[in-house]
Amino acid sequence: MTDTILVINPNSTERVTAGIDRALDPLRMTGGPSIVCHTLTEGPPGIERQADVERVTLPLARLVRERSEDCAAFVIACYSDPGLHVCREATPRPVMGIAECGLLTALTLGERIGVISILDRSIPRHLRQIRQHGLSDRFAGDLAIGLSIAELGDDDRVLARMSEVGRELRARHGADVLVMGCAGMARFKRRLGEAVGLPVVEPTQAAVTMAIGAVRLAKAQ
Amino acid sequence: MTDTILVINPNSTERVTAGIDRALDPLRMTGGPSIVCHTLTEGPPGIERQADVERVTLPLARLVRERSEDCAAFVIACYSDPGLHVCREATPRPVMGIAECGLLTALTLGERIGVISILDRSIPRHLRQIRQHGLSDRFAGDLAIGLSIAELGDDDRVLARMSEVGRELRARHGADVLVMGCAGMARFKRRLGEAVGLPVVEPTQAAVTMAIGAVRLAKAQ
Amino acid sequence: MTDTILVINPNSTERVTAGIDRALDPLRMTGGPSIVCHTLTEGPPGIERQADVERVTLPLARLVRERSEDCAAFVIACYSDPGLHVCREATPRPVMGIAECGLLTALTLGERIGVISILDRSIPRHLRQIRQHGLSDRFAGDLAIGLSIAELGDDDRVLARMSEVGRELRARHGADVLVMGCAGMARFKRRLGEAVGLPVVEPTQAAVTMAIGAVRLAKAQ
Amino acid sequence: MTDTILVINPNSTERVTAGIDRALDPLRMTGGPSIVCHTLTEGPPGIERQADVERVTLPLARLVRERSEDCAAFVIACYSDPGLHVCREATPRPVMGIAECGLLTALTLGERIGVISILDRSIPRHLRQIRQHGLSDRFAGDLAIGLSIAELGDDDRVLARMSEVGRELRARHGADVLVMGCAGMARFKRRLGEAVGLPVVEPTQAAVTMAIGAVRLAKAQ
Amino acid sequence: MTDTILVINPNSTERVTAGIDRALDPLRMTGGPSIVCHTLTEGPPGIERQADVERVTLPLARLVRERSEDCAAFVIACYSDPGLHVCREATPRPVMGIAECGLLTALTLGERIGVISILDRSIPRHLRQIRQHGLSDRFAGDLAIGLSIAELGDDDRVLARMSEVGRELRARHGADVLVMGCAGMARFKRRLGEAVGLPVVEPTQAAVTMAIGAVRLAKAQ
Amino acid sequence: MTDTILVINPNSTERVTAGIDRALDPLRMTGGPSIVCHTLTEGPPGIERQADVERVTLPLARLVRERSEDCAAFVIACYSDPGLHVCREATPRPVMGIAECGLLTALTLGERIGVISILDRSIPRHLRQIRQHGLSDRFAGDLAIGLSIAELGDDDRVLARMSEVGRELRARHGADVLVMGCAGMARFKRRLGEAVGLPVVEPTQAAVTMAIGAVRLAKAQ
Repeated sequence: MTDTILVINPNSTERVTAGIDRALDPLRMTGGPSIVCHTLTEGPPGIERQADVERVTLPLARLVRERSEDCAAFVIACYSDPGLHVCREATPRPVMGIAECGLLTALTLGERIGVISILDRSIPRHLRQIRQHGLSDRFAGDLAIGLSIAELGDDDRVLARMSEVGRELRARHGADVLVMGCAGMARFKRRLGEAVGLPVVEPTQAAVTMAIGAVRLAKAQ
Repeated sequence: MTDTILVINPNSTERVTAGIDRALDPLRMTGGPSIVCHTLTEGPPGIERQADVERVTLPLARLVRERSEDCAAFVIACYSDPGLHVCREATPRPVMGIAECGLLTALTLGERIGVISILDRSIPRHLRQIRQHGLSDRFAGDLAIGLSIAELGDDDRVLARMSEVGRELRARHGADVLVMGCAGMARFKRRLGEAVGLPVVEPTQAAVTMAIGAVRLAKAQ
Repeated sequence: MTDTILVINPNSTERVTAGIDRALDPLRMTGGPSIVCHTLTEGPPGIERQADVERVTLPLARLVRERSEDCAAFVIACYSDPGLHVCREATPRPVMGIAECGLLTALTLGERIGVISILDRSIPRHLRQIRQHGLSDRFAGDLAIGLSIAELGDDDRVLARMSEVGRELRARHGADVLVMGCAGMARFKRRLGEAVGLPVVEPTQAAVTMAIGAVRLAKAQ
Repeated sequence: MTDTILVINPNSTERVTAGIDRALDPLRMTGGPSIVCHTLTEGPPGIERQADVERVTLPLARLVRERSEDCAAFVIACYSDPGLHVCREATPRPVMGIAECGLLTALTLGERIGVISILDRSIPRHLRQIRQHGLSDRFAGDLAIGLSIAELGDDDRVLARMSEVGRELRARHGADVLVMGCAGMARFKRRLGEAVGLPVVEPTQAAVTMAIGAVRLAKAQ
Repeated sequence: MTDTILVINPNSTERVTAGIDRALDPLRMTGGPSIVCHTLTEGPPGIERQADVERVTLPLARLVRERSEDCAAFVIACYSDPGLHVCREATPRPVMGIAECGLLTALTLGERIGVISILDRSIPRHLRQIRQHGLSDRFAGDLAIGLSIAELGDDDRVLARMSEVGRELRARHGADVLVMGCAGMARFKRRLGEAVGLPVVEPTQAAVTMAIGAVRLAKAQ
Repeated sequence: MTDTILVINPNSTERVTAGIDRALDPLRMTGGPSIVCHTLTEGPPGIERQADVERVTLPLARLVRERSEDCAAFVIACYSDPGLHVCREATPRPVMGIAECGLLTALTLGERIGVISILDRSIPRHLRQIRQHGLSDRFAGDLAIGLSIAELGDDDRVLARMSEVGRELRARHGADVLVMGCAGMARFKRRLGEAVGLPVVEPTQAAVTMAIGAVRLAKAQ
């Protein structure tokens, strides 16, 4: 039977899940794990505030516990890595957080990581993440694109701001690799890389990559 | 056409390459990249001394340059990560070093990494690696199994010493995840984990995992 | 009106709250803030697992939001500092976590902090805390007393084990100041310090100390 | 009898001591320690140069030793924390340095600390402090207001420059909490915070806060 | 017999060796070690790319091994410190790398090191060096002068750009000591220091200094 | 005229100065700087307590200021590096501290430094030094030989204890280079190295080495 990697969007916006699903298509291989995206319907529409992060932790833990029999691994597809540790406690299966995996993957592509965030208010949380992972010496900076909800619906505007921010991370902060600090940005990856001239990591792709290995290796033992 | 990940054993011992090849079998998936192991015939029988490391850097660079057209990614399968940066300069393809990827993967499995090395003389080089990656705050310790060439041919003896060292890394150094600091140890992974009661990372498996993702994502852009 | 510092025990065990309350008695001053201890009735009996930590975050946030009008500051009296950031988001009042404050206070008393925990399973979480605070270079070690529930009811046994662990942190790990890594240990503080010969920080006392200052200074501005 | 916290201004300028005394008024509580400010008459008019710092260390040690019977704690109210360690050696009473306590308190208010200094020449000393405390990963930057003696007498000019510097620490260095790196600035605290939009720590207030706790807890044991 | 310190220019450009030789003249003392500069004729004209670095490692190791009888110490005079560790393995004599010694010497002159490089492409390698040495907390930044080959032949242009870069390292990155990140810049040292107003370390001079001590002390034991 | 490096023993014990003088003999070269040892007669017999450290700072500053015309550099020959910064403020000449230089020199000889101290009470001060220099990631440990005054007069006993401590630093703390953490130990250097099997740095020799370079290079500019 095919192993399933369940990629969970902790926010309840199906459009975001659809975008994640498309971004993961390259990682689907005939003989490889099945990559299934799941929307956490109990989740808020978006995860912006710390309260949103906390809101989804136990629902995520419940989900991974319930699905431990039929899923081989789990990916939490929100850059806050909400519930990463409670999920790891809840299941013997591998659990990957996209921020953790995104940052780790970036280390194979550059010396100093720049993170592009959507909201300024996420940055303190991201800084705590960087320190928590012990990656302070590999961190260049984290800047937000600072767009309103309306602007966020305009892809050209979003790409333009991401490119501006990416160039600032490069020029002022010394970043030589970028991590897109949000799960819904995958479609910009290539154009962002071209605009800034730096490698770009899409964190959900990074996490599913590591999950595929974990699943295949667990089978083998 | 199938993408090929070329996994290069920089030492010239075919038996080691065969062991690596077997260890990578779980990562072979229909529809996924072809994983081909290659022995660097110009390499020394084993890479033990810094001179051995230096000896293989340019041959590795030449190989990856020559194979850039027909290979989609390269893995340097020696825990010294010899030539990692000159290979990245030599090819536009992704290049993974097994120590780098092994350490990064360990970070998803534990708080503090213990490395089990074969030779005491490798430890200073490994310490420089840890610092170079900026992972000092995630590092518990690195100990060698310290066996003679004769003993290294006795699998039971090797496993026993690896288990002793793993337990020491756990008890005295606070390690909660182990990385096997040598490319030829894959066959001990499961039993080592059972003996010590800690997750174990086999670094070539970690590197090929990350290479698979890099290859599949490069195709997609 | 007297300002109130609400010290919240996120576990539902009143006996623990009573112990915290007694430990804070020295910080009650006639003209100073009123220190009121509160048991989070929705909380689990004890906070041992990550799921317990997650379980109390939103109830804590709700509580601090509801009490923001009549309380001047909040202290989360569990060494996991559960919900510290969501509580800071939920109220404009100062919020202190006892681990954060305990560690910071320890820095005024010694060069290298040793943490005495109750459970081994808490240690990975504590290690993430240390890194998250950026205090890795001031950290000696964290060891658990490893007693069963029955033994934990025996104060002499608990003190004996805490003293053993404290001495090990001193002798083997180089600790020169101890932080008691649990909110229910205040009654052992003096005897532990005498047994080990090191200063001991009781983290709830440290947090309430910092809260008193925050409250008094907020009044003044 | 009321415990006395002796807050020592190591420079001989009474006007500065008076300013410190006013800034500490909110921390005076009926039933709490008596906060008494003391001018070190042997001290220089201002502590600007390293020689000024060294000049006051032994006088401070003598003072704390002499006053150990009638004082319960000591605060060294100069941002250089002069003599902090020799004072701790000289008395069994708690001794707090305002820079140490200011930085530690800032950690409860933000992710990255910006320090506003008076003189450029103090900055190297402050940088050594940050590293000595092990707080490099929590440090954004330290900038001086760079005013002449005449300008320093003009409160409006001082506040304007402090605000400019605070905004630069925020915008260019990523600071999200400010510490006023001098003992004589308390009167600017609120307005500086409003001008920059960041929390501001007045370090003498931070130190007396921690001293109050230390005194009350020492009584209790 | 006079002890000889062999200072090896790993690139084959005699003009560079001559410049190094002149720069070392102040360190020649009667009764002191003889300082002899040597051009590695097998080396490339310049060391710019990682492949250039790797190309010289084994030739350097061979050279130091062959010369171990008649030389008392070796200095590798290229800021990449190529072959530093394989050379230390190859000879019982002291081996100094100019980057390592330059950075260490800079620590006696300032709090935060700024490195002036010739090529942008060297900067990632220099960043890995900084981390490998464990000096991240003492590092301000590394910027390249970014001149073309033609411009590099114009000393006035080089000095002007080095001064610009030095001022930027000072003003924007907080550097208070500069290290010239290339072995051929010694002639600019004094003027650069005057232009920027910071101490400047010429790394080959730093390395020969440390080698002199090592040689004299080895004689004495 | 010969340049003079004034090596100052801040304690008033001439026997110690004589031992330092003998240890520096190998660094005397006919055409090199004159190395003159000086006893600070105002100093205490030994520098053991923080008060001893503070006692000598201003006398050292006065001395270096007075001797700036006739001396080319100064070395503070006490492992506490007392007055290092006030001396650097007092003179335009280079000033070296033996701990700073000893630690930096050790970095060219090993990955992780072990410091052998005389007194336990010095260790907290040494730990602050390590952090202040930003060398935490290169530090293995600091242990004291813990002998009484009587035993300290017995060279065989001292060497035996130093060797024990050195071996413990190696075996338990992972040190691969030792620094003798006191200025009076030079005569044990060779035998200690042989007993432990590690390179040993005598810090006054390290500091004078760096001073020789500084003096010769200052002449040249």
